[in-house]
Amino acid sequence: MNGAEAFIQTLKDCGVDVCFANPGTSEMQLVAAVDRTHGMRAVLGLFEGVVTGAADGYGRMADKPAVTLLHLGPGLGNGLANLHNARRAGSPVINMVGDHATYHRHHDAPLTSDVVGVAQPMSDWVRVSRSERDLAQAGAEAFAMAQSYPGKIATVVVPADHAWTEGSAAVAAPACSAPALAPDAALAAAAEALKSGEGPKALFLGGRALREDALVQAGRIAAATGARLIAETFAARHQRGAGRVAVEKLPYFGEQAQAYLAEFKTLVFCGTEPPVSFFAYPGKPSWLSPDGATIVRLASLREDALAALTGVAAALDAPAEAAPIQDATSFPAEPGKLTTASIGAVLNELLPEGAIVSDESATSGGAAYGMCAGAAKHDWLQLTGGSIGQGLPLAVGAAVACPDRKVIALHGDGGAMYTNQALWTMAREQLDVTTVIFNNGSYAILNIELMRVGVQNPGPKALSMLDLRNPAINWTQLSEGMGVPAVRVETTEEFRAALADALAHKGPRLIEAML
Amino acid sequence: MNGAEAFIQTLKDCGVDVCFANPGTSEMQLVAAVDRTHGMRAVLGLFEGVVTGAADGYGRMADKPAVTLLHLGPGLGNGLANLHNARRAGSPVINMVGDHATYHRHHDAPLTSDVVGVAQPMSDWVRVSRSERDLAQAGAEAFAMAQSYPGKIATVVVPADHAWTEGSAAVAAPACSAPALAPDAALAAAAEALKSGEGPKALFLGGRALREDALVQAGRIAAATGARLIAETFAARHQRGAGRVAVEKLPYFGEQAQAYLAEFKTLVFCGTEPPVSFFAYPGKPSWLSPDGATIVRLASLREDALAALTGVAAALDAPAEAAPIQDATSFPAEPGKLTTASIGAVLNELLPEGAIVSDESATSGGAAYGMCAGAAKHDWLQLTGGSIGQGLPLAVGAAVACPDRKVIALHGDGGAMYTNQALWTMAREQLDVTTVIFNNGSYAILNIELMRVGVQNPGPKALSMLDLRNPAINWTQLSEGMGVPAVRVETTEEFRAALADALAHKGPRLIEAML
Repeated sequence: MNGAEAFIQTLKDCGVDVCFANPGTSEMQLVAAVDRTHGMRAVLGLFEGVVTGAADGYGRMADKPAVTLLHLGPGLGNGLANLHNARRAGSPVINMVGDHATYHRHHDAPLTSDVVGVAQPMSDWVRVSRSERDLAQAGAEAFAMAQSYPGKIATVVVPADHAWTEGSAAVAAPACSAPALAPDAALAAAAEALKSGEGPKALFLGGRALREDALVQAGRIAAATGARLIAETFAARHQRGAGRVAVEKLPYFGEQAQAYLAEFKTLVFCGTEPPVSFFAYPGKPSWLSPDGATIVRLASLREDALAALTGVAAALDAPAEAAPIQDATSFPAEPGKLTTASIGAVLNELLPEGAIVSDESATSGGAAYGMCAGAAKHDWLQLTGGSIGQGLPLAVGAAVACPDRKVIALHGDGGAMYTNQALWTMAREQLDVTTVIFNNGSYAILNIELMRVGVQNPGPKALSMLDLRNPAINWTQLSEGMGVPAVRVETTEEFRAALADALAHKGPRLIEAML
Repeated sequence: MNGAEAFIQTLKDCGVDVCFANPGTSEMQLVAAVDRTHGMRAVLGLFEGVVTGAADGYGRMADKPAVTLLHLGPGLGNGLANLHNARRAGSPVINMVGDHATYHRHHDAPLTSDVVGVAQPMSDWVRVSRSERDLAQAGAEAFAMAQSYPGKIATVVVPADHAWTEGSAAVAAPACSAPALAPDAALAAAAEALKSGEGPKALFLGGRALREDALVQAGRIAAATGARLIAETFAARHQRGAGRVAVEKLPYFGEQAQAYLAEFKTLVFCGTEPPVSFFAYPGKPSWLSPDGATIVRLASLREDALAALTGVAAALDAPAEAAPIQDATSFPAEPGKLTTASIGAVLNELLPEGAIVSDESATSGGAAYGMCAGAAKHDWLQLTGGSIGQGLPLAVGAAVACPDRKVIALHGDGGAMYTNQALWTMAREQLDVTTVIFNNGSYAILNIELMRVGVQNPGPKALSMLDLRNPAINWTQLSEGMGVPAVRVETTEEFRAALADALAHKGPRLIEAML
């Protein structure tokens, strides 16, 4: 077999069975190898940000990597923003990036660039294939690296001649390392602080600590110690809903987050670091935890959160029953003109058991997030790296990973424009995704941030740079132009009917919610 | 004034008066500074690839830089592909990329990344501001660098605190260096080879050698020596049309290009290097010039092409009159079902004097390119770096640079999807751009390339990755969804009517040409 076939077969043998692809000429042998490898699904994206964001969503839901197929340095460049988000999420992703044949590079043909240089800023690991035989080995190493708990971004650069040269063979799947464990001393310190530390106390959770199994252990600790459970602001995957352990949420804006945390004397962090302000603002602090509080780092994002929480619960001799458990909730949805609150109320009511919510709703979605806490059990995925344009691709990947679960993408209009091409992939693959576009005709967050960074009396030119109403974007037309049936709604009643209809049918739909 | 104001004022004093922007929170002070700087136009793009591609188009037409405004590492990442194309075009571009405040970086907030690392692969020059006072100095240096003949990509990284801190001041515009001159020995060698070298002889032109003034000198040389004039395959800006010096075109595919060049015994290169195959193919050469031919490098892309050609013409005592001069042409447009040839014939007939054509029509556009050689005088801009998704943003920038000239974007459907958001900016700014989408439902070039790289009997999975028909994209809906009036045409008659109507009116239009 040629190098490309050996590489793809190796990945398949490792358990990788989805390729999100946007190929070009230099990747044709990789396309052919995907074609020939039984059980390797190919999903085409019409822009690389769709491809990498889909790999992130897939990784978050499957807990194993998909492989992306990208076209040289510029194609990888187009995928960097969502690789940044994936890296911040701790998602497992393997990138295969084509490059010119080794003997062609020095000619500096038009598409030549420093592919490794483009890869490094958003990859945890970069490896250039050294030969057609080495390419398969690089694939096995990439898999092991991508699977490093909870997941890493592993990028393999594939010179075209290594892909097309015969005489290679697949290599065996590597042994993947077990998750790193938090040090015993950290467990002991956390248990001691939560048991005997000054109150109020909080157990602050992020990364894999927001999965259901870890939350049960966190809930046992809360039951034993009275510590409050708080989730990081942007969670890669938070398993929540009625009957699961209830977790509070740290607000986004720094001053609100600081006020939220001010009362705590003891803070224990698991799966994440102590929170900092998303941006810097003149005269405002970056560090949000209260001065003088006892801070204990139980486990980082890269240490086993479940094991750490289980160990602390055992050390505390915590009760078997977790608490607090989230009650089912319902909210009245104000009829008439649609609002973010009425969207939240209807979502809470209609969200199906097992739903996956890809949330990049920015200013519009806070209500929905809060009001769905007591909805049927679901997974809530957020924008981990702050680079907008993640939500639609993430929904693509989640739907590929979990074909039997309904995916709901909640998206601001500004962010959705970056990777609107994801709608086409939803239509092509007939993915079971319902997209809700919050159409407020604005980068609404920036209207707030403009004041917060101290800009006084912004003029018309400044405000125009935050405004999406001139011209207004018609998301119903965009969606139907890419093959996804769409409807525009203006009232709570119309939204409820549209959402109910979308949830009652398999396949992609878009609801343009006019705010 | 604060650092942002001093920076923007410095750029304005240098003559930079357009900012293509996609800002975020960390750039709000830069937005405010653009707002407050009289004469600095702000043009919003809803995706960074639109912003950088527009800056490229602006630079090609204005011969001076616009400044881009980009949001940290991921925002810059989204703009890399079109910066790659701009760099290959030798376009002048200044990027201002926001970053976290200096004191905030070590907190590793979610949007933190290696901004310099992201910038380097596609920039000729990268500079991080060192203080609020240094920021203006960085702007002046960036301008001088961007203006280095024919143009460079200069990137300034702007920490937010440097932007918002008071106490800075604009600095004087720097002296820009004159274009580097080709060595006298190169001029002498070129004159000698063209005069006395073995025939057939060719003068091969690229970069600024394809501007009207340089072509006159090339035509004088051709008249004196009988050398044929050949243009590089992908030209940044080729000034052509009836009455201008006629230039042949090197074909795209390597074997065709090799055959085209095979007869020449003497090849002189000006404004470009000897051509190489765009990609490598198994068993085919990268180097396209014939073995044994005399090759003379008269001037590189970065040496003054006009001066070099003028010098050679003088050394040859060439006649004042250039030759060959392109005749006006006309072609019958076959009525009925629209074809690439009938599109070319109609374009040749209707192209208005002074039109600017942004051509990313890939497989569909070759006919139009060839048939427009004898159209009214126009500028033809091509995909210089091979990274698709350039053509619509390039048209945006060209239209901003030249508001009194009609811009026509010829675009393949696959490539247009990457940066479809450019249509919204055309509508917002009411740019005088007529976009023709060649809708063939395919990455047609890849269907050709799949065979050329040696893939035998591609299966359905491979072919599906080159196919855009499932679902078919409706460009008329996409365009109208972003505010650009659009019409779908299926016949030559419909195309002629639609193009004539678009050309008769100012403002953006889109014609979806079904092939």
